[in-house]
Order: sequence, then structure tokens, then C-alpha cells
Amino acid sequence: MTTQQASDVARIPVPRLPAGLETPCLVVDLDIVERNARRLQEELNRRGVSLRPHVKTHKSVALARVQLDAGAAGLTVGTLGEAEVMAEAGLDDLFLAYPVWAEGPRAARLRALHEKVGLRVGVDSVAGAERLAAATAGSGGPLRVLVEVDPGLHRTGVAGPQEAVEVATAAMRVGLDVRGVFSHGGHSYAAPHLGATAGAEEARALGAAADAIRDAGIGVDVVSAGSTPTALGAAIGPVNEIRAGTYLLGDYQQVVLGAIPPDGIALHVAATIVSTAVPGQVVLDTGAKTLTKDRAPYVEGYGHIPAYPEAILDRVNDYHGMVRIPAGTPAPRLGEIVAVAPNHVCPVVDLFDTFVAARGGEVLGRWPVDARGRSG
Amino acid sequence: MTTQQASDVARIPVPRLPAGLETPCLVVDLDIVERNARRLQEELNRRGVSLRPHVKTHKSVALARVQLDAGAAGLTVGTLGEAEVMAEAGLDDLFLAYPVWAEGPRAARLRALHEKVGLRVGVDSVAGAERLAAATAGSGGPLRVLVEVDPGLHRTGVAGPQEAVEVATAAMRVGLDVRGVFSHGGHSYAAPHLGATAGAEEARALGAAADAIRDAGIGVDVVSAGSTPTALGAAIGPVNEIRAGTYLLGDYQQVVLGAIPPDGIALHVAATIVSTAVPGQVVLDTGAKTLTKDRAPYVEGYGHIPAYPEAILDRVNDYHGMVRIPAGTPAPRLGEIVAVAPNHVCPVVDLFDTFVAARGGEVLGRWPVDARGRSG
Repeated sequence: MTTQQASDVARIPVPRLPAGLETPCLVVDLDIVERNARRLQEELNRRGVSLRPHVKTHKSVALARVQLDAGAAGLTVGTLGEAEVMAEAGLDDLFLAYPVWAEGPRAARLRALHEKVGLRVGVDSVAGAERLAAATAGSGGPLRVLVEVDPGLHRTGVAGPQEAVEVATAAMRVGLDVRGVFSHGGHSYAAPHLGATAGAEEARALGAAADAIRDAGIGVDVVSAGSTPTALGAAIGPVNEIRAGTYLLGDYQQVVLGAIPPDGIALHVAATIVSTAVPGQVVLDTGAKTLTKDRAPYVEGYGHIPAYPEAILDRVNDYHGMVRIPAGTPAPRLGEIVAVAPNHVCPVVDLFDTFVAARGGEVLGRWPVDARGRSG
Repeated sequence: MTTQQASDVARIPVPRLPAGLETPCLVVDLDIVERNARRLQEELNRRGVSLRPHVKTHKSVALARVQLDAGAAGLTVGTLGEAEVMAEAGLDDLFLAYPVWAEGPRAARLRALHEKVGLRVGVDSVAGAERLAAATAGSGGPLRVLVEVDPGLHRTGVAGPQEAVEVATAAMRVGLDVRGVFSHGGHSYAAPHLGATAGAEEARALGAAADAIRDAGIGVDVVSAGSTPTALGAAIGPVNEIRAGTYLLGDYQQVVLGAIPPDGIALHVAATIVSTAVPGQVVLDTGAKTLTKDRAPYVEGYGHIPAYPEAILDRVNDYHGMVRIPAGTPAPRLGEIVAVAPNHVCPVVDLFDTFVAARGGEVLGRWPVDARGRSG
């Protein structure tokens, strides 16, 4: 860990947990959520760039409304299921940033969604465009699509401007409404402080693809870049929309990456110490089924315990989290409840039906994770 | 990978997926489930050792019934929530193999469960025993407990015979009904073919603790060892009960460990190829939120695709699985549906509300994952 990372981690505040929690459970501090929503929104407003947050992080209608109330232009979703949940709640400006393969039952669901809300969908192949057109033909007007561009992550998205023109042209030909380009700068997760560089690369790749599509005579009004680490690095030049997700709830990894400030972690897993039988160790009632095994190489352990910053959560089984207590450092007592900041918040939220919504240690209620488990 | 592991992996059969699946989804072949249930049960019957399967693997009442029908003596659960779900379904001989900290709302739930079913609970501390006794005092007779012994995993469980006697004596004193000892041989997951050795160590540690407790004048009628890799290695000497879970559904890791035969994988995640934009790669619509990031060091990738055994699922994001296709090996086409054997089945099942129950490629129905998300 660099000096900067160590300093950021040392400044992670100890969260105020409400009394009487039944562990393991998620606790979300709404004061921090609202501050995170405002912080990114205000910076993007200043730059004249739209924010279209990704709901896959929180999967909550109530938290999506916090983002819209703060000024978000619409929502991003990763699956048809997430889109259906948001649409059902009346949130009707949705970008499904995924190369949906519209065949079988999925084609019928896509068509129904397109008839109900303002929808855009991602596409990165000619065959995918043909399926999207066939699934939505004669219903609700031409489906709006954005061509996905690979900004260097090598996950999905066309390789360059020429391939972008090919997919855009084919999409137009089969009757889709091509509106622009998008990308996900996920390679920024590879190491701390890559965000600015990776974001600039992303903006460049998008700009080149957008220019080529315009040169081919197809209008481009959306140039959309993604990810929390690249959010500010990519909000430059041709980019006019940012899709970030994790910024709202925060997690330990984002602090180590330098993508959010140390006081930006709004969600913790509350856990009870259930065993101290092994010397130098305490065991939590939270493990792989509540914290996941997500662990980037630059973070130590499977989560961070702000009240015991020297403690290392270095093993997890399904319902056990084994925390090593280095010699001479304080340890929680048997039965004590501690807050754990997950490494990566998105898959953790998806493991719970509800979260405890709190403000400064007071419980407001148990709120649903509305799109929990909607992975398709 | 050793020659034996490579040979086992090469013999993993390609599963027959039903037609018309909506991906991502779980598909469970009941023919294989029933064969797996019989295979372990018959071997333990031959040895005169009880099988008390762990339901945390499948979280399904219907699959627990398959195990009981095959001859299981009762069920093991990892959380109060799992116990409540099984009890609600009338499955009423339950061992909660976990050092439950019975305080607050959890104490009331434990008491209610103890009044409803035949329950045993794990304990590894004097303070934990005191809480268990206080929570169940004056209700349903003395709570039956087993003292947890550490067989070398260093997770939970007392260190040795002397500490076992201390906890057992304290438990008796506060009014609990001490029935024996148990352990979990999870260190067998560290490397292939450790199962037999780790199982023998586990049996030895349990035997020593059981003898010491008997010498202290406390009766021991249950000596219970856990885990699928150690199931047969530990079913020796003083051990009269085996708790295995993963053996029923199987997974890729268990084949590589040598703990189940190559034809023992009953569950797969069905996924669609959604992108082929990056050369040498195909992208699945299953990722970290459906396969998890569980990955032991001795397995390659985040799951195994039997129909394309050379393909390597070497990156996962929330909804994307990136599969590298080595040069000269076959690749699935865009839109094709493939079956993925998860590395570790337990946390994967917990990500789905239902599974497709099938026999030889024919769908019987969508069955609930009854205890999904019941992690506490």
C-alpha cells in the first residue's frame, strides 16, 4: 500500500451503528448517501455533463430516487430484470447498458419494456442488432440503441471506429434508432489512481467512434462513459453522460483506489463476534454468503473493519469471517457487533432482501433491495 | 494440475440442458442428485456411520427430502434461518452446527425453534454456553449441544481435549444437555487429495476430545465430522456421524479435489453468449452475481464449461463472464446457450430464487431455493 492509500484508509471513520441489530445485516447511512449523490452530481453539473447512475450497485427504488432528486438525468441498468423493477416503480428513463441477446422469452420481455418506458439498449454486434430489431418491430417506435465501444477493458464493445460504423450502419438498416456510443472503463479497477488515465483513454476511444459514426452520416447525440473510478477522468471532451454506480454507497476498494474520499462509505455489513476460540483471531457471523470473496490484489482481506483498522479479515467461509488480530492491537470481544466495509459493494447488496436505512445511528426502517437477484 | 486431476476434468460429461431456458438460471439434474445421495449414503451405511447432510449447499426442502429418503439420519444447518425454513416444512431433526451467539432477537428465535423441533446446537466457549442456556431456560427441556473441536482448520472450535472438557463442564453446569463433539475438516479444501489425511486428523482430534469429556464423567453419544472432501476419510474409529453438503450437487472444485467423481456434478448455471466482439473471447451473461468469485488456487477460471473444456472463464464482472478461447480450440457462437459448472456450488445456489429441476434434459418444474438469503 502506498503512503497515500495508507493515509486514506486511516481516515475511514468508524460508522455509528444503530442499537439492537440482528446480524448479519446491511446498514446504510442516508446522510452519507445523500452527500455522495450531491458530490458527484454537483461536479458534473459544473462541467455540463449528465449523470445517469447505475442502479446495479444498490438495486433500490428509494436510492434511485435519491439520485434523481439530486439531479440525475435518468438511470442505467445492467439487466432486463433491473429495468423491469425500476419501470414498475414509475422510473421510466432507462439505459440498459448491456449487449442484450433478444431471443426467446427475453425478446418478449424486451418488447414489453420498450412499450412501457423510454428505453435505450446497448449493442456491439450486427447479429445482436438484428435480434433487437426483430424483438421490437412494430411496437413503441424504433428502439433506441447505443453502440458499445471497448475503451481498453477488452470485455464487450467494438474494437474501434471502423467496427463502430459497421454496427451502427447495420443497426440503422434493420430499423433501430442509433443515438450514440458508450463504454465502461472497468480497467481502472486494476490498480489505484488509474482512474484519471483510464478515463481519458475512454473519452478518446468514445470520441473517435462518435466522429466516425457522424462521418458515416448517422447522428450521435449521446457519448456515455462509465465506472466510478473513471467518472471524473472521462467527463471531458466529447463525453456528455457519465454512468457511475458505486459512488453512491462506496466501499473499501474505492477508497484504496482513490476514487472516493475516506468518508464516502455509506454501507456496512453489521456482524457479531461468535468465536474467539483460536488465539489471535476472532470470528464474525458474516462470510462468503454476505461479504462475497471479492478481493482486488491491492486490498488486504475480504473487507475492512473501521473500528479495528489493524485487524485483517483474511479468510471467509459461507457463514464465518476469520479476523486475524495482530499482536498488541485491540480485538473486539465475544458477542460484540462490528461494522465491516465490504471490498466491493455491488455483489454484497445483491445478497440481502432488505437493508437497515439509518441516519447517524438512528433506524428509519428496513427498506427492500427491490431488484435483488434480478441478474437476467 | 496433476495427471489425475487433468484426467478427471477431461471425463466431466457435457450436461443435457433443457430447450428454451431463460438465462442465467440454475439447472439441476435430479437423476444425478439421487445417484449422489445414494452413493455416499450406501458407503456410510456399510460402515455403520450416520449421514446428516448439510442443507446450506442446496437450501431446498425438496432436495433435503431426497437425502432423508435415501437414509439420512437428520439434517445439518448453518444458520437459524435455514433451521426455521426446514422446521416450517416439517423436517424436525436439526443440528445447527454453528457457535450461535444467543442474544437479542436471535435468543428469541432460538427458543422458538427449540420448542418446535428436535434441535442440537454447536458451542465453543463458556460464554456462548451461558447465552444458549439463558435463551432456552424453562422451555422444551434442556437444549442439546455439541462441543466444537478444531481439527486443524483454525476457524472455530476449542483447541484440544482440555478446552473441550472446560466447555462441556460449563455447559452441563448451566443446564445444557451435552451430547458430544463435532468438527469441520475444511482444511481439506487447501489442495487436491488432502481429504483422506485431513479426515483421519479430524477423527483423531474428535476421538481425543470425546475421550476426555467421557473421562470427566459426561456422556458422549455423538462424534460428528464434517465436509465432503473428508467425508470418507473421517468416517472411521470414534466417528459415528458425517456431515457433508456439497456431495449432493457437486461442483468443479470437488472434481479437481478428487472428492467426487467426474459424473457427480448435478448443478450447472446455464448462460448465453452475448458478445464475441473481442477476438479470442466470448462473453457469457453470467458473472460474479451468478457464479461468485470463488476460486481455489488449484482451479483455473471461475467455472468450467464441459462442452468447451479448453475454454477458460478467466474474468467475471457482475453480469459478464469473459471466456478466453485458446487458439485452435472450438468456441461457442453468439446466442448459444452453454452450461457452466461452478467452482463452489454453495454460494452460487444462494444467488437464485429458484432452480430448473430436470431429468435427462426434460424440465420437471421450477423449484424454490427455500432458504435463499437466510444467512443469519
